[in-house]
Formats: sequence, C-alpha cells, structure tokens
Amino acid sequence: MRFTCEKSILQEGISTAQKAVTGKSTMPVLNGILIKTFNNEIILTGSDIDLSIETRVKAEILEEGSIVIDAKIFGEIIRKLPNDVIHINTIDNNSIEILCQKSRFTLIHMNADDFPELPNINENMIFSIPQKILKNMIKSTIFATAQDDTRPILTGVLFEINNKNLNLVALDGYRLALRSEILETDNTINAVIPGKTLNEVSKILEEEDENVNITFTPNHILFSLGETKIISRLLEGDFIKYNSIIPSEYNLKAIAKRADLLNCIERASLMAKEGNTNLVKLSIEDENMVITSNSQLGMVREELNIILQGEPLQIAFNSKYLIDVLKIMDEDEIVMEFSSSVSPCLLKNKEVNNCTYLVLPVRLLNH
Amino acid sequence: MRFTCEKSILQEGISTAQKAVTGKSTMPVLNGILIKTFNNEIILTGSDIDLSIETRVKAEILEEGSIVIDAKIFGEIIRKLPNDVIHINTIDNNSIEILCQKSRFTLIHMNADDFPELPNINENMIFSIPQKILKNMIKSTIFATAQDDTRPILTGVLFEINNKNLNLVALDGYRLALRSEILETDNTINAVIPGKTLNEVSKILEEEDENVNITFTPNHILFSLGETKIISRLLEGDFIKYNSIIPSEYNLKAIAKRADLLNCIERASLMAKEGNTNLVKLSIEDENMVITSNSQLGMVREELNIILQGEPLQIAFNSKYLIDVLKIMDEDEIVMEFSSSVSPCLLKNKEVNNCTYLVLPVRLLNH
Repeated sequence: MRFTCEKSILQEGISTAQKAVTGKSTMPVLNGILIKTFNNEIILTGSDIDLSIETRVKAEILEEGSIVIDAKIFGEIIRKLPNDVIHINTIDNNSIEILCQKSRFTLIHMNADDFPELPNINENMIFSIPQKILKNMIKSTIFATAQDDTRPILTGVLFEINNKNLNLVALDGYRLALRSEILETDNTINAVIPGKTLNEVSKILEEEDENVNITFTPNHILFSLGETKIISRLLEGDFIKYNSIIPSEYNLKAIAKRADLLNCIERASLMAKEGNTNLVKLSIEDENMVITSNSQLGMVREELNIILQGEPLQIAFNSKYLIDVLKIMDEDEIVMEFSSSVSPCLLKNKEVNNCTYLVLPVRLLNH
Repeated sequence: MRFTCEKSILQEGISTAQKAVTGKSTMPVLNGILIKTFNNEIILTGSDIDLSIETRVKAEILEEGSIVIDAKIFGEIIRKLPNDVIHINTIDNNSIEILCQKSRFTLIHMNADDFPELPNINENMIFSIPQKILKNMIKSTIFATAQDDTRPILTGVLFEINNKNLNLVALDGYRLALRSEILETDNTINAVIPGKTLNEVSKILEEEDENVNITFTPNHILFSLGETKIISRLLEGDFIKYNSIIPSEYNLKAIAKRADLLNCIERASLMAKEGNTNLVKLSIEDENMVITSNSQLGMVREELNIILQGEPLQIAFNSKYLIDVLKIMDEDEIVMEFSSSVSPCLLKNKEVNNCTYLVLPVRLLNH
C-alpha cells in the first residue's frame, strides 16, 4: 500500500472514523482504524461492533492495499505533523512508513483481514432530514435516556416514524423527552438506537442544512452524510408505550419566561444540592410561582411572575430534572401543565408545538 | 451587620479571597470567608494559614459587624444572583439574609472571632514590580518546582534580590529554571515561597503594567496590589546554591528555531510516551539536529536545521523536560549549550538574557 494525502483532510477523516473506536476493546484490531485504498480515495473505518463509522478522503493511490493501524497513536502523529502532503506506505516487518517534510515515522500495523466486516446494508433510503435538525432532535432527547442498564431498552432513543412524523423519544422512569418533526415519507418505523452511539452520531452531524439520509434494517440503522457512513446496531425489544404516560388533560397551566424560571430553579438548587436531595418546592398561585428549598445550611425563596390558568398548586421536584429540560428548550416562553401534586408535569414550547417534556414530581410526606 | 453591594464587585471580591480557601481544611472556619465592614467598604478574607488573601470592595454599610460564611456556597449564590444591588444582613439563629430582586436566601454563618488573625506586617515596601512581569516570572519558573515532599525546600521558588537584580529560581533535581529582571533596590533578600501559594498569587496578578508591591518579613511575604493583600508564609531552610549547578562553559552551542524544535520533540515524544520512558535522542552534527525515539510500536526520526558551533554530540533527554521549557520560552530563536553527553544542557534566549534553563540528560547504556 502506498498513498499520499493532504494532512488536513487525512486528519479530518481519522477524527471521524475514530469516533467509533473506544480504545478499550479486548480485540486489539478494534483499537485500530482500517485504511483501505479505493480508486482515488482511501476509506477509513473505525468500529466497536455496536457502532461502525466509515469515511472516504481524497488521496493519490500509488499502490493498492489495506492495513489496520492503532487509532490513538496514528491520530496523534497525523495531528502533530506539519500542514503538508503526507506519504504513507507499507514497509517490512508489518510496518508502515509515514513521511512528511523532514519527519519520518515507522509504525507497526495490524492485519486488515482481522477487521470485522461491516453489516451489508441495502441503501433504500427511508428518509432524509437536514443534519442540523437531527442534531437538535438528538440533543433534545438523549439527556433523558437511562444511565444504568436495569432496563437496557431505556438506554436508547426511540425513532418512531408514522403519519409523516418523526418522533424521537427517551425516558428513564423519572422524566420523558419527546421531540417531533414533520417528514416527507409514507413509511412506518419503530426502532431504538443506543444512546451511546447516538452521542457519537450527533458529534459528526454538522450545524448545516445539508441532508443526512437514514436507512433502517431489522437490526441496524445507517446514517449517510457526505463521504461518511455511520452504522449502529439497534437495541432489541419493544420500547415503552410512551403515549399512555403523557397526560392529555390538566387542571393548571402556567406560562413562564424560560430564562427567568431556569435562573430561579438553579439558585434554589444551590441549597437543594447541600441536602443531597435536590428537592425544590413550587407553590403556584395568583400569577406567582414561589420556589423554595432548604438544607441544614439555610433556605432560599424565589418568586417569579407567571400567567396562570386553573387552580393553585403545591408540588415538589428534583431540581436537576427541571434544569435539564429548561436548558434544552429554546423558546423564550414555555408552558407548564399540572394535574395534581402527585401527577407528572408537562413542559412545552408556547409557540412551536414540536416537543413535550414530562417530569415526575417528588411526593412530599405532608401531602 | 448590614450592607448593600453591587453583585459584580462582590462576586469579584469573593473570587479573589476564595483563592486562599482550599475547602479541605479540618477547621470549618477556614472553609469560610471572613466578611468585615470597614468605613464604606467590606473586607473579605480567605485563609488556609499558609496563604491568606484579603481584599476590599466598595459597599454601603448600614450596620457594622463581621461574620464568616462558607466560601463555596456563598460564592455560588452570589454568582447566580441577577446583576443588581445585593442586600446582606445578619438575622436570628446565626444566619444571614441575602436579598436581591425577588430572591431571598438565608444561610448559617460562623463566628468571626474563630477566624485566625493574619500576620501583622509592617509595610516597608521592599520593592515594586509591574504585575505582568512578576506573573510572567512565576510562570517561567514554577513548573520546575519539585512535586513531591522529599526535599520540601524544592517545592518552592527562590526569590533572590541582590545587585539590583530579582532572580526567581526553581529546581527539582532533574531541571532548573532561572528568570531574572533588573530591579531598582539596594536590598538583599533570599526567601523561598511555596509553589502552591505562588500559583494562586499568579492567578490574581493581572496582565497589566500596574505595580505590585512586595514586603518581606523573616517568615512571610506580602504582595500588595490595588485593594488586595496576599500573605504567604515562607518555606524554612536554605535553598540549594544553584549557581554552582549551572555550567559556565560549553563545548557545543546550537541555535535553533524554538517552534520548530518544540514541534519535532513533541512528535518524537508521541513514540517516546508509548515506551513509558519519554526518552528522545538528539544527534547534533553539521548544521543538523536529528531527533529520534522508538518504542515497541515503531520509531520516529526528525531533522532540524540549526546553527552549530563546536563538536558533534549525541545526547538523550526525557522529552517532557525539554517540552516544558520550550513551551515557556517566548523568543523565536533559542540557544542550547552542551558540554558532553552526560552533562546538563542549558537553554537560553538568543536575544534577551533574562532566563536560563538547565535540563539533565538521560545517561544511555552505550555511552
């Protein structure tokens, strides 16, 4: 194998493929990046089995071939080389030579035949969506995935397509995040993507209008964007029937300025943290929301103007769950819907109806 | 006690005083900040005994008094409050009340009488130096202090004043850093400041021409800048006679471009790190410096144009020590002086003679 490639584009390719390499695999070859020459390109592939990323970069191929090279040290070497053309070729002793200006590295490589084959996916595109919108949808839901493996299906995000709608849903038993977009497709899909791999996908998606194409198979999802393909396995099993959890009615509706509410709850949580409970109490009455919290160090009382429809209510929450949601939402004004002090609270945008957040209250002893 | 103060200036004062609070003291009062009213100011003091920082901020005093308040939570509360006037006053139950717009905190305080008295220092100013110069001198030497306590005196930086010169010196047995500035004083001083406290001092010093005044007592050093006083204890014992360590002659002198040399050694160290030895070899001959390193993963060879005076030489170093120095130095070209492959190497600026770095070589078996 022998090729030359511009440092900057090789570095970008490695950085993309490397996102699938955990560096912790017990299979040495999975700590490496597969480099394969193909026409006037090289194909770089990283994989941890659950997630595989393949990206192509322009190169001048002088001799075909394929090798696997340790991702971490290869990435570090290329990053530190001068901004110039890099020559790479195989030499004796299972090694490659990396040349750039007056730098010369030799590095042991692994055997390309040992690298696992990627799932063969027939790219009948199921749907297409601007990268920045999918990136935002992932960010808006992934924080609500379960962080422990008690119920593995909850560590993933549901991709649900029906009635020309794409819904992303995550929930962990304490809160739920639902984010929707209209989609031009007549397909119906119900698949759960591991949160861990979706996190890497979201890093590769750009804040751009350019589309990402998405294909599903019974066991995998494929994201195609530009020169890059990302393949993730799906989680097995059925996702929770989340619709039955979201209340459709409410007794109390409050409209609040998002930034003000976030600031009040963040300040209240300073005291809540000290008690290790994160407990904040909301008392809603007369166009006013009073937020209180206390610990052995002292107490805090915050007051916020709101627009109120319905009956007064007292309710308590883990402040972290409210803060997570209020930080993710992006409209200036939000709507909170309550039914009782022991029923979930819904948070929605005031204007654009594309997300629903649900947070369970903490039951207080004196209720 | 009762006062009002602008949030931004109170926050800045807390941030300064807090730099002396480690938060790990077994004396609860030392995890707090002492707040004392004084004329139309409040004085904020933090201390961990070794280091004390006192800063004054403008406030409207409505009732005199003094309290100690937990530094961490007090700092977090003030930081999160809106940008407006903050009212603070003592209330019942050993508590204070913090009011700002519609926020109200109560917070338990500690007794000001339990707070240790700061050393009484007669401020006969010994010398005065622009803040940004002292900040740079600290940065240029502190990295070479010893990180373990085997020889406590080496965990500090020597402040040496004689012949109208201020020298800062640090050394750890493997390398030495010396940084000098001319000073308008006839005094002679020899004092060692703990690296730990100097690190905090350096954070408070601004990149400004404004002076910091420095006073020494037999056991303490006082830095006065603007509204802030920083008092550090000195380390006991005599510093090493560092002058006898620095060679005054050399057999080989090499002039190199600093950035290029740094890049070469950083790349070589990528391979050196893999072998856990950090070993890089320099081979100097014919206007050329060849830098090599190897590990079980492979090898690297870097080549650099230099200006050479003297005999060819082969010498090896721990790459970390060279990288630390080359990152700190700021001239484009540097001078390296060598005597033999087992003698220390000196690094100096090519133009301005205000620093000397010494790095011990690693003795190779085949020398």
